[in-house]
Amino acid sequence: MALEIERKFLLLNEDWQPQASRSARYRQGYLTEGGRCSIRVRVAGARAFLNIKSATLGIRRTEYEYPLPLAEAQEMLSAFTLGGEVVKTRHFVEYGQHTWEIDVFEGVNQGLVVAEVELADEAEAFERPPWLGQEVSDDPRYYNVYLAHHPYHSW
Amino acid sequence: MALEIERKFLLLNEDWQPQASRSARYRQGYLTEGGRCSIRVRVAGARAFLNIKSATLGIRRTEYEYPLPLAEAQEMLSAFTLGGEVVKTRHFVEYGQHTWEIDVFEGVNQGLVVAEVELADEAEAFERPPWLGQEVSDDPRYYNVYLAHHPYHSW
Repeated sequence: MALEIERKFLLLNEDWQPQASRSARYRQGYLTEGGRCSIRVRVAGARAFLNIKSATLGIRRTEYEYPLPLAEAQEMLSAFTLGGEVVKTRHFVEYGQHTWEIDVFEGVNQGLVVAEVELADEAEAFERPPWLGQEVSDDPRYYNVYLAHHPYHSW
Repeated sequence: MALEIERKFLLLNEDWQPQASRSARYRQGYLTEGGRCSIRVRVAGARAFLNIKSATLGIRRTEYEYPLPLAEAQEMLSAFTLGGEVVKTRHFVEYGQHTWEIDVFEGVNQGLVVAEVELADEAEAFERPPWLGQEVSDDPRYYNVYLAHHPYHSW
């Protein structure tokens, strides 16, 4: 088991863009709706992953992740996804001692941008980049599994 | 993707028992209820597997299976299972050109015994063992995911 401790924020502006060191485009879908965990298939370029995450609210969640054969991941996305596919580009920004992941959503979620930082424990301090906006860690609307069923355009 | 073509039968009697060549005890639980696929965690002795199967009725289903670390499988069974755990011993019986898998259920499903045979295609012929009873391939009550929510004792 991995324990995921993650804080999530909106962005004030686009000043983070020149600081991005690399980017990756993700297509992902969820095989579940409700239940005690979310089950996600993600295709990232030529790689794919199955992710199982506790359906608990807040910054601390248990998470399991396993690599998938790409072709099987694509089949499962087509055949088993509930709700819509979530497509986004994740940009990685190093700031202070942490790596920020900035997700720029596309399609029916276009306009939504969120920044996440993974912490070793809930109390860990981190430097706040000047482009960081309001924290939304406790708002379930910003879960990707929520977006799959309630895209940002419908909010 | 594997295509699973499987026929399932009740048993007339216990005459298959001396023919079993080996047996394995399974503990399994489902992470989903509803949806387009069932997602199962199975612990079989020291090994564990995640299985994703199309939620379609009948003898032909698509199926994906991946090994899981045993400790993670046990954590997921405890934390994420919906409904009850399904516990059974599977006995393998060679008959003619096929291997029959005979599941003897325990606990809240005690009393239920089913025999399954995997076929290469729907039309494949097989020899019927004399202990084979009524076919139940098309009866969703005999799906293990159904048993997790509606144990045999409650039928």
